[in-house]
Amino acid sequence: MPVIEAHILEGYSPNEKSRLTTALTDAVRFVVPAPDEAISVMLHEYPEEAYARGGRHRKPAPARPDPKAIVLDYLSAMEARDLDAASACLGVGFEMRFPGTEPMSRLGELIDWAKGRYRFVTKTNEAVEAFQSNNATVVYVRGTLAGEWPDGTTFEGIRFVDRFEIEDGLITRQDVWNDIAEVRGR
Amino acid sequence: MPVIEAHILEGYSPNEKSRLTTALTDAVRFVVPAPDEAISVMLHEYPEEAYARGGRHRKPAPARPDPKAIVLDYLSAMEARDLDAASACLGVGFEMRFPGTEPMSRLGELIDWAKGRYRFVTKTNEAVEAFQSNNATVVYVRGTLAGEWPDGTTFEGIRFVDRFEIEDGLITRQDVWNDIAEVRGR
Amino acid sequence: MPVIEAHILEGYSPNEKSRLTTALTDAVRFVVPAPDEAISVMLHEYPEEAYARGGRHRKPAPARPDPKAIVLDYLSAMEARDLDAASACLGVGFEMRFPGTEPMSRLGELIDWAKGRYRFVTKTNEAVEAFQSNNATVVYVRGTLAGEWPDGTTFEGIRFVDRFEIEDGLITRQDVWNDIAEVRGR
Amino acid sequence: MPVIEAHILEGYSPNEKSRLTTALTDAVRFVVPAPDEAISVMLHEYPEEAYARGGRHRKPAPARPDPKAIVLDYLSAMEARDLDAASACLGVGFEMRFPGTEPMSRLGELIDWAKGRYRFVTKTNEAVEAFQSNNATVVYVRGTLAGEWPDGTTFEGIRFVDRFEIEDGLITRQDVWNDIAEVRGR
Amino acid sequence: MPVIEAHILEGYSPNEKSRLTTALTDAVRFVVPAPDEAISVMLHEYPEEAYARGGRHRKPAPARPDPKAIVLDYLSAMEARDLDAASACLGVGFEMRFPGTEPMSRLGELIDWAKGRYRFVTKTNEAVEAFQSNNATVVYVRGTLAGEWPDGTTFEGIRFVDRFEIEDGLITRQDVWNDIAEVRGR
Amino acid sequence: MPVIEAHILEGYSPNEKSRLTTALTDAVRFVVPAPDEAISVMLHEYPEEAYARGGRHRKPAPARPDPKAIVLDYLSAMEARDLDAASACLGVGFEMRFPGTEPMSRLGELIDWAKGRYRFVTKTNEAVEAFQSNNATVVYVRGTLAGEWPDGTTFEGIRFVDRFEIEDGLITRQDVWNDIAEVRGR
Repeated sequence: MPVIEAHILEGYSPNEKSRLTTALTDAVRFVVPAPDEAISVMLHEYPEEAYARGGRHRKPAPARPDPKAIVLDYLSAMEARDLDAASACLGVGFEMRFPGTEPMSRLGELIDWAKGRYRFVTKTNEAVEAFQSNNATVVYVRGTLAGEWPDGTTFEGIRFVDRFEIEDGLITRQDVWNDIAEVRGR
Repeated sequence: MPVIEAHILEGYSPNEKSRLTTALTDAVRFVVPAPDEAISVMLHEYPEEAYARGGRHRKPAPARPDPKAIVLDYLSAMEARDLDAASACLGVGFEMRFPGTEPMSRLGELIDWAKGRYRFVTKTNEAVEAFQSNNATVVYVRGTLAGEWPDGTTFEGIRFVDRFEIEDGLITRQDVWNDIAEVRGR
Repeated sequence: MPVIEAHILEGYSPNEKSRLTTALTDAVRFVVPAPDEAISVMLHEYPEEAYARGGRHRKPAPARPDPKAIVLDYLSAMEARDLDAASACLGVGFEMRFPGTEPMSRLGELIDWAKGRYRFVTKTNEAVEAFQSNNATVVYVRGTLAGEWPDGTTFEGIRFVDRFEIEDGLITRQDVWNDIAEVRGR
Repeated sequence: MPVIEAHILEGYSPNEKSRLTTALTDAVRFVVPAPDEAISVMLHEYPEEAYARGGRHRKPAPARPDPKAIVLDYLSAMEARDLDAASACLGVGFEMRFPGTEPMSRLGELIDWAKGRYRFVTKTNEAVEAFQSNNATVVYVRGTLAGEWPDGTTFEGIRFVDRFEIEDGLITRQDVWNDIAEVRGR
Repeated sequence: MPVIEAHILEGYSPNEKSRLTTALTDAVRFVVPAPDEAISVMLHEYPEEAYARGGRHRKPAPARPDPKAIVLDYLSAMEARDLDAASACLGVGFEMRFPGTEPMSRLGELIDWAKGRYRFVTKTNEAVEAFQSNNATVVYVRGTLAGEWPDGTTFEGIRFVDRFEIEDGLITRQDVWNDIAEVRGR
Repeated sequence: MPVIEAHILEGYSPNEKSRLTTALTDAVRFVVPAPDEAISVMLHEYPEEAYARGGRHRKPAPARPDPKAIVLDYLSAMEARDLDAASACLGVGFEMRFPGTEPMSRLGELIDWAKGRYRFVTKTNEAVEAFQSNNATVVYVRGTLAGEWPDGTTFEGIRFVDRFEIEDGLITRQDVWNDIAEVRGR
């Protein structure tokens, strides 16, 4: 115990069902400190004809895409300066907040601003964490930055954390914190 | 749909059950984009005598405490420089990582180091986010810092984010990022 | 088999729960010709704190009143010519259709019109049938009429059937058929 | 809420399952005034080998046929004076009650008697209502009659209601009320 | 897994429910070699008003008494030669089969016959096993016999096994096997 | 009532599932004297991807083999003096206890010892009973023995009962009681 039964419509992929059983398992652990052996999750799947809400049969809503994959795709595209691919990950009203500058909404702005801070930067991700909070999906990525300063000297091991909000499969907000100023200031 | 049934032992408080229904609802939303009206969560509660695992009746494990409350209590105690109260929130092996210094494990170290950075600092929390990731509970707090620099001038509105890991109701790790160096460097 | 589990909020009376188990049993019989012994209905009842829809706890909606009782109260009031009591059973937009006259909406109209047809009439109910059809509850009452013609001679055993629609506990439509003209015409 | 789970044997057609989910939804609405969005019905279907009653596996009983279809077929056959087809819809002990005559049990009797009342009659159905009451299925059909009087003049818009009882897929009783005498008497 | 849900009427004692959870757990183990940690049994208990079979509410049948206790009471009474108490444990048609004699049906017969075999005998029970087989409950008791031969010499450690059938709380059959002849024959 | 739901992983054969529904039905009967018609057992089967324990998907453990078949195979092999086949049924630590001799652990010992008791013996089984008791499966076989004494005269109708313990599909213990000494001693 606890035992969780989730009743869903048929049509989700094995991977989507695994994401659901994992999320439900973590939801239990969040409140009940049961040993792993004691937390069972079972998915009942119904064909459309065996389910009705308000007397009407329903089609399964397509699963939300894996938010970690969305964020990692976006970060890869940014690192490769593939702005088209990166922009395709962004939703209406997207806003990003970086250390030491005003909020920006276009990736071009970010690129221009960053030129004064470093020649390039690459991210080594130590952990990617995703969870749901009401209707927004939140992803945190943390790790270290490496790259070159404008003067050509290199840096590495600078801590960062990025926070993303995702709605309908698109990134609507990015908040970035890191120790660049801390290191650069030395 | 989806409909979630959670089978638990009797003995959890209304507040603990609400935390569980909320966590399960968010777990569903994480994968299935169902409208709020369609996500039902139902808790079946069993007296000890009506449940057996491996043929043995079991007692309910006390619920995990609310991790947001633990973190906010810790942060309040730190802001008030009540090191006893703050230390009581920490677990074995506690480690903290702040911008611009090595990892520390004792709160006294942190206080000493901080003296060179600011006279005092207060946090305005904009959001507290908590979720479970396997056996650790993770809490992120973000907002802005205000306070006085060592020279007595003031600052405010400096972005920060803190990440905490909690095990068995105690904080085992704190990671801090903020824009202090960014602002101070100007 | 079939076995029916109904999950409801706590707060319904034993009589309301019996009406629900009966309605569910008849719903099964409507499609599956299982013997009585094989149709089980089980009600799971949840306190508010053990149920959430869309992450919010809910209060149970008060049960719909027994529609047969509403109709029988109305018919008794009409037979006793207690128009106040009868009117209290009627909802907005009430309409009634009787043999040999236009649709009427006020009970006074009906009384006036009936004067030309009989001095008084009493109903002997043989059966009262109630069921739900989407958002309206339907009640059929059938039996025989007895009374006096305008000339003081008596009649009895005249077949009738009344159909009622009920919404939110109030009668919104009454349709009446009977053999009065058939008998009177002899 | 409410959430209904119905456990049935495999083997019912999508249409039969829809009839069951609809009947169960209406059974809930009959007692609980929940909004449509809140009434979920889920059918668990079991292969024979996964179900036992009294330790014995069982075969699913064939579903009861749609009672509305039975009645409409019967009425069509009668209107077309196809007595063979109509008789095939009738069960042992069938009895019918029409306005202004004794109960009859054979369709031929009805045809003979009707000759004196009208040359022909056609029905325009406004509504067909079906429900279960213990072991009988009840169908009400209402609408208007049109046709020719014995003298060749025509009529139309005469209200009628027919009540049918169905057992084992066959009609065992028909009760008819209408305003023919009311109109004819003018 | 497996997870077992048993739906029962309210009214069984904690001990009766424990017997049920144990029996269900053993039923699972009989077929599925799951580790103890993985076999969960959960009892849903319904007040009468929340359960209906064939549309009728039901009262819970009193639990069957513990068959091991019945048999041990009977054996104690027999050892104490309390024939009234022992007889009270026996059902209609009781029959017993002992080594070396015809079937007997009255305890008096047994006492008389046993006189020629030993002065007295006491049982040391090593194990009592009970299980259900269709409508009969079966109990096996095994262990060793000690006592005195007719000549006053003593014996001990003689293996025995008794098999009992119980219906409606009364013993209807006893079969006894032991090594008395084996030992006596030496 | 009672109604039993068993949640298992997919992959068990129809015969294995029948054994499970039978065992669960008998487990209910052991405590609740419900009529056969009222005991329903329903197996929910989950593909691996729809079940997780501790967040991990699991494979179904192969079902335990039918213990009655194991014992009957062993007894047939012994009767045919096919010691290889019989030995293949035995587990580590196997021990057998026969009337009038010390416990033995090897089938060869048994054969040698039996030579002095009879030339051969065949079993007529009247009943085979199997049940689970914690982690051991127990089988009782009872019936009568026939054969030839060492002097060539024959015997028949001698009562016997054998008790077996089975773990992991192998016999680990056999206890035998019978009336051979009783009969031989005459």
